Amino acid sequence: MEFVERYNGSGLLIEVEKILYEFKGVQHIQIFQTKSFGKMLVLDGKIQLTEKDEAFYHEMLVHPAMLMHESPKRVLVIGGGDGGAVREVLKHDPKDVVMVEIDENVVKACKEYIGIDMGALEDSRVNILFEDGLEFVRNCRGRFDVVIVDGTDPNPISQALISKEFYRDCAKICDYFVTQSQSPFAQPDYFKSIYDNAEFKNKAVYLGFVPTYPHGLWSYLIGSDVMKIALDLNVIRKRFEKRSIETIYYTPEIHVSAFALPKWIAHLIR
Amino acid sequence: MEFVERYNGSGLLIEVEKILYEFKGVQHIQIFQTKSFGKMLVLDGKIQLTEKDEAFYHEMLVHPAMLMHESPKRVLVIGGGDGGAVREVLKHDPKDVVMVEIDENVVKACKEYIGIDMGALEDSRVNILFEDGLEFVRNCRGRFDVVIVDGTDPNPISQALISKEFYRDCAKICDYFVTQSQSPFAQPDYFKSIYDNAEFKNKAVYLGFVPTYPHGLWSYLIGSDVMKIALDLNVIRKRFEKRSIETIYYTPEIHVSAFALPKWIAHLIR
Repeated sequence: MEFVERYNGSGLLIEVEKILYEFKGVQHIQIFQTKSFGKMLVLDGKIQLTEKDEAFYHEMLVHPAMLMHESPKRVLVIGGGDGGAVREVLKHDPKDVVMVEIDENVVKACKEYIGIDMGALEDSRVNILFEDGLEFVRNCRGRFDVVIVDGTDPNPISQALISKEFYRDCAKICDYFVTQSQSPFAQPDYFKSIYDNAEFKNKAVYLGFVPTYPHGLWSYLIGSDVMKIALDLNVIRKRFEKRSIETIYYTPEIHVSAFALPKWIAHLIR
Repeated sequence: MEFVERYNGSGLLIEVEKILYEFKGVQHIQIFQTKSFGKMLVLDGKIQLTEKDEAFYHEMLVHPAMLMHESPKRVLVIGGGDGGAVREVLKHDPKDVVMVEIDENVVKACKEYIGIDMGALEDSRVNILFEDGLEFVRNCRGRFDVVIVDGTDPNPISQALISKEFYRDCAKICDYFVTQSQSPFAQPDYFKSIYDNAEFKNKAVYLGFVPTYPHGLWSYLIGSDVMKIALDLNVIRKRFEKRSIETIYYTPEIHVSAFALPKWIAHLIR
């Protein structure tokens, strides 16, 4: 059996051994046992993660912003129902993590059938709210050191998470903000919209390799109204070592290098 | 119509509008008109290039080694029948380029149906020899500033191009040697073999994004018995500007950044 995710004129095919779970609620959730990628989560037909490469994505989403911050103690994760982002956040020993996920079914299904959170979602420092991240940020009176958006591809549910208003609300409540920002190659329009709408005083795009995302290239946007985009290798390395962070993809050298953009990507957002 | 290249448990699907050419000789050559990637060359079932992303590959294969060299005047290209590598080499204004390609049919088919060489293969500084690159290097009495291997995936024809003997012969005749070194993700064994067999005094692996290669991540190996792996951004940038090189992917910053390896790739070759 094969699962195929189609892009524009191309697609990724994954050989499937078994359907482990399927449910149509807020989103169409599918969990597959694949031949070479372990378990795989698909939402509305789009691959969200596989066991084999989810760490490539979650590490690159989380560690750059967390290491740019000298001491990230309060962290907000929007989306990220699979728990992979929170798992990486906990490596920095925060005091308080709030995860706001709109779809409780995703959390339940991932916990039961995948388990990549490695217990992170049961950690006593983690509070999970099942509500709309947009509303949460708009009404938020607190402040976070880092806000991380781990959303799906823009769709009727998540479209508002790439709006100017949302980014403006986020800028007000945090030191550093980071979001996945789609594939510059397969989804250049979304990539550009995210960059343009994210009107932070300081912002930058960085890249990472995620084999099961469209054509393997993925982007992230980091922004702040109050802090600099920190790319000093010595500083980042010192923090990384001090916090004793274990990774399989991220390194301080990758942190710095990921901000170098191929010319055609730099042109998209110049 | 669809073309599918299968990897281990996954595959890339490309929508095809028309078969432009097909021939079974030394290799099975297919040229397709695709829906989103322009023309596409396939050898023995494996995508070699598409018009949309071939420059990502050819620029990253050619420019790092050519810019590490202060003045690359004599260049040898082994393989590269489509002419893309030679096209990039000519941007450095060399005096003499030798291309050794085993399969004349590839050169003819690419010239007639694709044309990405942009006339490079007719340039008066370029000599094309239709013979075995292995033999050529073994018997070579001359010396090159840069040797570039633009081969296919290891197969009965190209297997010897990843042998210790071949690399040793290459080391003797050049300042810098570079070869594509497969996908560390989809073909970790080939990747590791190439690294291990390439016993240059100085060597390093670097990475690039090529959407139509397995899962989008591609690697290159650069080596030298007599020169250092040059990663000084200022030096590279100065040469890049002095030679007025136009690119769509490569930049001097990418040159330096491409050598930062995700932890799991560094582990593969430590």
